[in-house]
Amino acid sequence: MSAVDSQVGDVPKPINKYMEDASEDFLYHFGFGIKTLDIEATFGDTKFICTGGSPSRFKLYAEWFSKETGLPCSENLSRSDRFVIYKTGSVCWINHGMGTPSLSIMLIESLKLMHHAKAKDVKFIRLGTSGGIGVAPGTVVISTAAMNGELTDKYVQWIAGKRVERDTYLDEGISEDMGKLAVELSIPFEKGMTMCADDFYEGQMRLDGYFCEYTAEDKFAFLKLIHEKGVRNIEMESTCFASMTYRAGVKAAIVCVALLNRMNGDQIKIEHEQYVEYEQRPFRLVTAYIRKQLGI
Amino acid sequence: MSAVDSQVGDVPKPINKYMEDASEDFLYHFGFGIKTLDIEATFGDTKFICTGGSPSRFKLYAEWFSKETGLPCSENLSRSDRFVIYKTGSVCWINHGMGTPSLSIMLIESLKLMHHAKAKDVKFIRLGTSGGIGVAPGTVVISTAAMNGELTDKYVQWIAGKRVERDTYLDEGISEDMGKLAVELSIPFEKGMTMCADDFYEGQMRLDGYFCEYTAEDKFAFLKLIHEKGVRNIEMESTCFASMTYRAGVKAAIVCVALLNRMNGDQIKIEHEQYVEYEQRPFRLVTAYIRKQLGI
Repeated sequence: MSAVDSQVGDVPKPINKYMEDASEDFLYHFGFGIKTLDIEATFGDTKFICTGGSPSRFKLYAEWFSKETGLPCSENLSRSDRFVIYKTGSVCWINHGMGTPSLSIMLIESLKLMHHAKAKDVKFIRLGTSGGIGVAPGTVVISTAAMNGELTDKYVQWIAGKRVERDTYLDEGISEDMGKLAVELSIPFEKGMTMCADDFYEGQMRLDGYFCEYTAEDKFAFLKLIHEKGVRNIEMESTCFASMTYRAGVKAAIVCVALLNRMNGDQIKIEHEQYVEYEQRPFRLVTAYIRKQLGI
Repeated sequence: MSAVDSQVGDVPKPINKYMEDASEDFLYHFGFGIKTLDIEATFGDTKFICTGGSPSRFKLYAEWFSKETGLPCSENLSRSDRFVIYKTGSVCWINHGMGTPSLSIMLIESLKLMHHAKAKDVKFIRLGTSGGIGVAPGTVVISTAAMNGELTDKYVQWIAGKRVERDTYLDEGISEDMGKLAVELSIPFEKGMTMCADDFYEGQMRLDGYFCEYTAEDKFAFLKLIHEKGVRNIEMESTCFASMTYRAGVKAAIVCVALLNRMNGDQIKIEHEQYVEYEQRPFRLVTAYIRKQLGI
């Protein structure tokens, strides 16, 4: 029985014997704990955790969702400045910052939060921005799998000085439903693999960083190589997201808009109005899915 | 001649032939570029870039420095929500988020910013929070070196599917001066190595995460091992910071307060007042150093 089989539909349960009888658990980067907030009353009805890098985008998404559904939008429930947390009905909007280390903190504390809240059958969806690989700017990429900088489908951790490789997995049912909805909504989309880089410049073979020891030819050869492997966009979180959610036994999906086609350049040059419209695309797709699932 | 020898005192120059004649450079995560801001007029006098994770702490530090020196504090000069940028005279206060990927973006864009500003002899100082290893809570650790999760002193990047190891180096002169100042100011401090983990929970052998596949005995054996190697604190940015600044040829130092002694626990439980006093310690030390250097 896989981790997913054993837990989907249940309350997330920490895979940690030391937390079984913990009388206190302070979620440091959210700024509250089980002794300072009635977590079950506040988060017990959660069915979706929507996440992405930018704090102000997630405030905006929560406000848009509130406006569209008529559900009230909470104040920022985070008591720390590391992340924001908004809630609209049974949907939480939490940003995760940039890169897998920051995301890992947000995911661990969100999983502990859902456990303390006794929330059941919670799905995690990442709505991100990314650099497209051979796809036009504005295309929404629905991730089928995640690939790391070593070009394998693992999330690599270093624990006690030893290398640990974790499997990655994204829910096929959600991505299938999302694909159908994208067609219905006329949102330009592609399904494909998502590469997770550990930096924005050299790790993504950009030519516009402070350092650049490779050539334009090296860059294009690399982009071509990963495109052939099935990669359609690069961001900085997918392996950790697809691994930690799978390991915890919660269903997960990644839906990112491509802000540019890296085959044509490295600098992100979009007028504000166009940027907002691009930001709306993953939101429109994911919220259509959520509203259908929740019947709202 | 090392990178440091060749550049200290000069204007930082990108080690990137593609940026030599660039007619545009938009610093995407700062939200402005050379065509949208007079960067030389705004940042040309910069002598110090102070950085650390939290956006609100860096706003607070800038305000404290302004109050103490009488120098005006700028508004937030960042036009993106990814980072904040405050400026007080020739000192910039920029947060970097959590983890090396987020820090790497902030550093690359700060180095490009200093280059476009034609700023000379800029020093980078990280003022962070950390978990102490065998040091009392509130101790300020002045880093002598950085160590990664593999327990080596390298910053590891993956570029074009290949592993690249970068050297790390922190300026010995600054750490020596800081140590003397800490004595003068009666700030409890230790000099030692800083371990850079890629996550807050398993990578630091915490027992209070969502996942935990090791035992309390494993944890203490690991902390004892790294303590014997000279590690006095764990945070999530030091190898990248000590590597990218060295590679760019700018002097750098890391000064972090320990919020707890990991030998005694994992949860960070500090009353707000005590937390603020702890936050003040690296600030007091670093600003004493900066004021002495600048003669203000």
